[in-house]
Amino acid sequence: MTYHVGISDDRFIRGNIPMTKAEIRILVLARAKINPGDTVIDIGAGTGSLSVEAALQSGYGEVYAIEREPEGIELIRQNAAQFAAAVRPIAGAAPQALQGLPQADVILIGGSGGKLDAILTEARQLLKPGGRLVVTAVTVETLQRALAFLDSCPEFSVETICAQVTRLRKVASSHMMQALNPIYIIAAEAE
Amino acid sequence: MTYHVGISDDRFIRGNIPMTKAEIRILVLARAKINPGDTVIDIGAGTGSLSVEAALQSGYGEVYAIEREPEGIELIRQNAAQFAAAVRPIAGAAPQALQGLPQADVILIGGSGGKLDAILTEARQLLKPGGRLVVTAVTVETLQRALAFLDSCPEFSVETICAQVTRLRKVASSHMMQALNPIYIIAAEAE
Amino acid sequence: MTYHVGISDDRFIRGNIPMTKAEIRILVLARAKINPGDTVIDIGAGTGSLSVEAALQSGYGEVYAIEREPEGIELIRQNAAQFAAAVRPIAGAAPQALQGLPQADVILIGGSGGKLDAILTEARQLLKPGGRLVVTAVTVETLQRALAFLDSCPEFSVETICAQVTRLRKVASSHMMQALNPIYIIAAEAE
Amino acid sequence: MTYHVGISDDRFIRGNIPMTKAEIRILVLARAKINPGDTVIDIGAGTGSLSVEAALQSGYGEVYAIEREPEGIELIRQNAAQFAAAVRPIAGAAPQALQGLPQADVILIGGSGGKLDAILTEARQLLKPGGRLVVTAVTVETLQRALAFLDSCPEFSVETICAQVTRLRKVASSHMMQALNPIYIIAAEAE
Repeated sequence: MTYHVGISDDRFIRGNIPMTKAEIRILVLARAKINPGDTVIDIGAGTGSLSVEAALQSGYGEVYAIEREPEGIELIRQNAAQFAAAVRPIAGAAPQALQGLPQADVILIGGSGGKLDAILTEARQLLKPGGRLVVTAVTVETLQRALAFLDSCPEFSVETICAQVTRLRKVASSHMMQALNPIYIIAAEAE
Repeated sequence: MTYHVGISDDRFIRGNIPMTKAEIRILVLARAKINPGDTVIDIGAGTGSLSVEAALQSGYGEVYAIEREPEGIELIRQNAAQFAAAVRPIAGAAPQALQGLPQADVILIGGSGGKLDAILTEARQLLKPGGRLVVTAVTVETLQRALAFLDSCPEFSVETICAQVTRLRKVASSHMMQALNPIYIIAAEAE
Repeated sequence: MTYHVGISDDRFIRGNIPMTKAEIRILVLARAKINPGDTVIDIGAGTGSLSVEAALQSGYGEVYAIEREPEGIELIRQNAAQFAAAVRPIAGAAPQALQGLPQADVILIGGSGGKLDAILTEARQLLKPGGRLVVTAVTVETLQRALAFLDSCPEFSVETICAQVTRLRKVASSHMMQALNPIYIIAAEAE
Repeated sequence: MTYHVGISDDRFIRGNIPMTKAEIRILVLARAKINPGDTVIDIGAGTGSLSVEAALQSGYGEVYAIEREPEGIELIRQNAAQFAAAVRPIAGAAPQALQGLPQADVILIGGSGGKLDAILTEARQLLKPGGRLVVTAVTVETLQRALAFLDSCPEFSVETICAQVTRLRKVASSHMMQALNPIYIIAAEAE
């Protein structure tokens, strides 16, 4: 079966780890502009749902999925396996866990464990010219710090949106509106 | 203590009955334009949170809270009691449960049990000249039917909004964004 | 005619000054919990729409409307006059324009001209015990700074929401959904 | 330059025709699951922004862009030309303009001129087994009718979301939040 972006949430194994929802993955990956062969680093990979889709887009490229929760690492392995996606789980927390990784075309930051500035500083160094860095923020503080950091880097052009998705759920013959939490997507593209 | 609209959600006794959230109550009551002495009918009253606030605004007026779930009726009683609000719970389902009620200045419709057209037909008859009818809709079908019905009544001027509220929750030193479900508020004012 | 919160936007004279929309005024005023006789300071009052509604709620109280744009001051005068609202326009920018004002029960901050920290510092001093301070933010930076400041004050309990309102506009027999910009409302209540 | 979904809005020539915004195109195209060689019909193509992206995804496939406004047809031509996208503009209104078109893998409905039921009836006939039909709705009525129609067709599995995107615009050193109108995306996949 051909891969299309936005794999249904229920096809991922989840456990107790929060997962980036399909609609957000679609928007993040659009901003990541992954090309075949690209090297991708996914920081705070969670269940690996985004890493898996990144790997399916990068083809023969490499995707490094950094996650500090052991349960997450196991889920990443399982989800990568079921989609035959070339994802390398890296157990540990950024920025330390970034050491030894190659230069990347795309860096995705979905979790920062309170070390966003240090992670962004490292990520900036790791990003290839022309590379894309996409931060997803679910807190005001992550949003504000990501904007402040990225705007201060002259090599980046930054575009930010808040995506608020409501899903309609069929109940009898009615369609109920059920909100997902809003997510800010901060996309920086290096010259 | 003086009453101010938008009583905190956690001050109501809730059980398993869905409750209109404080921000939505605030917007609905603004559209209801309750005056002291007004007669109010709250259809699908749930926990009675809206009925209680309506009663506190109508003062010496009367608020009839129609609810078909016995658990709801009990919650309405308890919530009315703790706020010393003059709310009369009416066990049953509209439109039948509307029989025998007096003409109303304000009719609130938060639940219709699939009988929205019949309820609106009755409510229209019960509404005094100059009265306000406010429907809250959490499904596409309720929204569409309420709009179709109310727009077809020449005596009504109708204003509709969708309110999407996100609450910020403090987690450590961050503020996480947590969405409430969007609610459509259809407010009709009779000539 | 009795006053009800949420005066229709088109009843205010606007000019080129941005105006807080009716639904936001409703939510802000709910959080402001104005009592008859309250002293209110509205910083960045714009067209005065919020000041006017505050004055109608405070009755014999006083509302000071600080605005640095001369056009705004003129609009505040006109809007106060047409609603017979006791609003005193104060031409100038906060925090300087706050000098000489009395202690307040409620302080509303809708504009800060880049001096939010200084304004909050002054506002905190001016606020009576039990007073309410409500900041509306349309930028990430105002939101983050207001949260950081208010959370650091032990006397405040802070509640924050983002309100995203969509209005439905009738076009032929259809109802089009038209978004207003999202607004963050940060409400702090002093012990 | 490699094509990535979500071409920036300002790269399209627009005139006075409403354009589907980049974020919505991204979400619609994700649901459309276009494969190389697919035949796509875009009904109510507007400026052709969605047709162009569909053509870039379908590669050697065919994209038919139906639009009743002459200005739209001209914009579709220009936009297709500048992206070297194989889009065939068809001047006219659906369902009539659908006559003579081949079976399609994907049908996109962005405008219906009040004839949604007739268009959906024809579209259903034109859709190949396994095909995808995606309706975007900006009115309550289009949303409700699309849901009612598509739910009644046993061959379709339907998923619907409302996407509300807020863009952040840099003003001095602040980021202002500016809402785009919410869009409902109704995606039906045929067995």
